[in-house]
Amino acid sequence: MSIAYLNGTYLPLEQAQVSVLDRGFLFADGIYEVAAVIDGGLVDSDAHLARLQRSADALGIALPITLPEVEAAQKQLIARNALDEGLVYLQLTRGADATRDFLPSPTTPPTLVMFVTPKSIIDTPAMHSGIKVATMDDLRWARRDIKSVGLLAQVMAKREAAARGCQEAWMVEDGHVTEGASSTAFIVTDEGIVTRPYSQQVLAGCTALALNALAQESGLTVIRRPFTVAEALTAQEAFIASASTLCLSVVEIDGQPIGDGKPGPVATRLRQRYIDFARRTAR
Amino acid sequence: MSIAYLNGTYLPLEQAQVSVLDRGFLFADGIYEVAAVIDGGLVDSDAHLARLQRSADALGIALPITLPEVEAAQKQLIARNALDEGLVYLQLTRGADATRDFLPSPTTPPTLVMFVTPKSIIDTPAMHSGIKVATMDDLRWARRDIKSVGLLAQVMAKREAAARGCQEAWMVEDGHVTEGASSTAFIVTDEGIVTRPYSQQVLAGCTALALNALAQESGLTVIRRPFTVAEALTAQEAFIASASTLCLSVVEIDGQPIGDGKPGPVATRLRQRYIDFARRTAR
Repeated sequence: MSIAYLNGTYLPLEQAQVSVLDRGFLFADGIYEVAAVIDGGLVDSDAHLARLQRSADALGIALPITLPEVEAAQKQLIARNALDEGLVYLQLTRGADATRDFLPSPTTPPTLVMFVTPKSIIDTPAMHSGIKVATMDDLRWARRDIKSVGLLAQVMAKREAAARGCQEAWMVEDGHVTEGASSTAFIVTDEGIVTRPYSQQVLAGCTALALNALAQESGLTVIRRPFTVAEALTAQEAFIASASTLCLSVVEIDGQPIGDGKPGPVATRLRQRYIDFARRTAR
Repeated sequence: MSIAYLNGTYLPLEQAQVSVLDRGFLFADGIYEVAAVIDGGLVDSDAHLARLQRSADALGIALPITLPEVEAAQKQLIARNALDEGLVYLQLTRGADATRDFLPSPTTPPTLVMFVTPKSIIDTPAMHSGIKVATMDDLRWARRDIKSVGLLAQVMAKREAAARGCQEAWMVEDGHVTEGASSTAFIVTDEGIVTRPYSQQVLAGCTALALNALAQESGLTVIRRPFTVAEALTAQEAFIASASTLCLSVVEIDGQPIGDGKPGPVATRLRQRYIDFARRTAR
């Protein structure tokens, strides 16, 4: 039985419930983080906690506990669930007001929930097969830099991608790929590794940021600029990054093979470098 | 103590809870409706039920009960709460999967919740004072025709409007007003009543639609076209429509008075006509 954290209490996940008046449920008035767990340790925790604070600040939701206390609770969850590898999910909402009103009550305590999901992150079949991507219009709102739970457009994109036999959606706006529905998008060209610069149009991916640094450390060039679907289709490689996938090659986009249609050397090397980094630094 | 409906059960609202795994909470993967109650009867119920079905179909969420059963449950809630005037809120989500995954399980039963809020709708001070509106960029996603619970942009807009001393936000895109954060926007010019045509950029407001019909019945011209903030500022009148406000005059936009800065004759007449319609047809 999985143990979850809800507002300071540890309890079975099955019993972790929130009021139907919770603003996360009624208004998507909340944010979240997903951190990887490898060898029983939190991966890149500082980056995730810093982004949690940024998202909370952007919405004006006060964290009910300090960031070190958040991490301590995450580690408690890892211990209580004897989690060796998987994900820790965290969600902060503006809490449950007494009635439903767009304007929140300033005195309502926020809701903080965390739970874990066991998952083979390192040894995944997708590492050998690569993944397939479907491109589609980016329907999302204008503040994608906030990691909000307003994820309906992403759910729709993932469903459409699955219907087209793909594991991820790359969303396209003004002719350029913004990002994946739940990952950062990269291509490899003669220039080097190309990925979109951070702005309000995309989320600043923690795993992507670490990958960029690891790429540069190993002598690869990282160019921060938007790229088109046409560029991606003729790229040497394409890949994604996220906490739950780490780094995975994209071997097909909209039914067309990328490169030789197999996981490429740059993505494969970066994945291994990220795993080394994660193992070295997880705590 | 308020009685709510949750998946076929009537229970105290304080006890109405959903799993933290509910996709409404995790992904804003759900839709809602708000219907007015006047004299203990549901106002314009057919229109709200039809839109509920459209929103559910757009997301591919199956309603767990038929539309007549939905209405019967709403009427049960009105009776059990002895509600004379106020709102019935309804939310349908894709339910709580066993784990958090963007891709929903096809076998998860949806979550259906309803509750009531007593509220003076007809006799409200805003009817005499009018309301103030603040304009701002429309940050929302591209499928505003779906009445989804992904309402974070609207919450941000309402908070900004309140910070500017206003009761509603008018959201602006490509130089034109799309709609209010929780209402449809109208202005009155020499042409007649001007309001934006329905598309994926705005919600098809039930109250707005009824108001348009009532306006035309009483010999007023309704022109469906986008309008600018500049047009609104020089309009004879401005007003909003929604289930919870019915029809209210806008007397100030961004600090500038509209017309003579008092509720105008067209909005005042339409409000009364809508109340007559609601009283006549509520069931």
